[in-house]
Amino acid sequence: MDRLQKQFAFLEEIDKEKNIVRQTYLADGMRKEDDAEHSWHMAVMAMLLSEYANDEIDVLKTMSMVLVHDLIEIDAGDTYAYDVEGNKTKRERECKAADRLFSILPDDQRDRLRALWDEFEECATPEAKFANTLDKIQPLMLNNASGGKSWKEHDVHSEMVYKRNARTAEGSEQLWKYADDNFIKPNIEAGNLQK
Amino acid sequence: MDRLQKQFAFLEEIDKEKNIVRQTYLADGMRKEDDAEHSWHMAVMAMLLSEYANDEIDVLKTMSMVLVHDLIEIDAGDTYAYDVEGNKTKRERECKAADRLFSILPDDQRDRLRALWDEFEECATPEAKFANTLDKIQPLMLNNASGGKSWKEHDVHSEMVYKRNARTAEGSEQLWKYADDNFIKPNIEAGNLQK
Repeated sequence: MDRLQKQFAFLEEIDKEKNIVRQTYLADGMRKEDDAEHSWHMAVMAMLLSEYANDEIDVLKTMSMVLVHDLIEIDAGDTYAYDVEGNKTKRERECKAADRLFSILPDDQRDRLRALWDEFEECATPEAKFANTLDKIQPLMLNNASGGKSWKEHDVHSEMVYKRNARTAEGSEQLWKYADDNFIKPNIEAGNLQK
Repeated sequence: MDRLQKQFAFLEEIDKEKNIVRQTYLADGMRKEDDAEHSWHMAVMAMLLSEYANDEIDVLKTMSMVLVHDLIEIDAGDTYAYDVEGNKTKRERECKAADRLFSILPDDQRDRLRALWDEFEECATPEAKFANTLDKIQPLMLNNASGGKSWKEHDVHSEMVYKRNARTAEGSEQLWKYADDNFIKPNIEAGNLQK
């Protein structure tokens, strides 16, 4: 296959991300969102909220990272944050998925997307830290908007949310404080998140 | 409201883009895609296909443009490409939507997003031309993948497709040629697009 054929084969393959349903409900609570919608939302957040990153970030790199960070779920599926068993095998399933998916691309782009995904997972650079912060804050925003619908369904305790967000401030102290004050604490008060 | 409150009010408001359903089916033909999914797909295309732009483009600007280009449909709705009546009032409905939606943001970001949307609509700069090319080619790719499902449902004629794509080559001659050869012509041959 020539270069453009490989690129379009990949672009058609990743259409499947639209069928990977997450546990988070849309703001209106009517249905759960999918990975493509989640990634789009995060990319707009990267565009509008980069000023709050703890360290200066390359916005194009961050945006590229968030756009592709969940592609591996096409094969590996969405592992719910509070699914203990699923999280034991998550890393292995996702690496296998990355091997297959990114290899559809021409070699240079395969390497570029793999490096972006690895960087996101390692969460060590300013861009990866900020992308991971967005990945945590976007569902907090939606959970709050839907009256904690997903939290209530899964009997989530506030300590589980705080544990999961132990590193969220690493990308942005300001966004984490806003999310805690506006998306978490009011839901503990309201009983949507168990104490 | 302070700056961050306005930004999150906007980010929550645009969640509605996930409920704006387009006429294009997903590649698997099982359901129609929504605007957020379409915009995500286009942003990944901007990331992977910028090398084919007729003129050199700023990828961050192009990606930002495609991420927000359909937000106005939250108020104005999706106007199907081949809906003659709907297209008469489209511009007016969309401008009103842009006024309301972008005004939720702090002034500097309101102006930035409005300028990006205006630039996309005017289709005069290299970035806007390329973004418009992607906006046309993404549904061609999906229509082809689903066996022309949307075209067949609406009895679309090939001349309508060519008329709608009269300017698609302005952003990228190479992508237009690929799309014509791989996504349009085979569907005319197969009878999915009427001659």
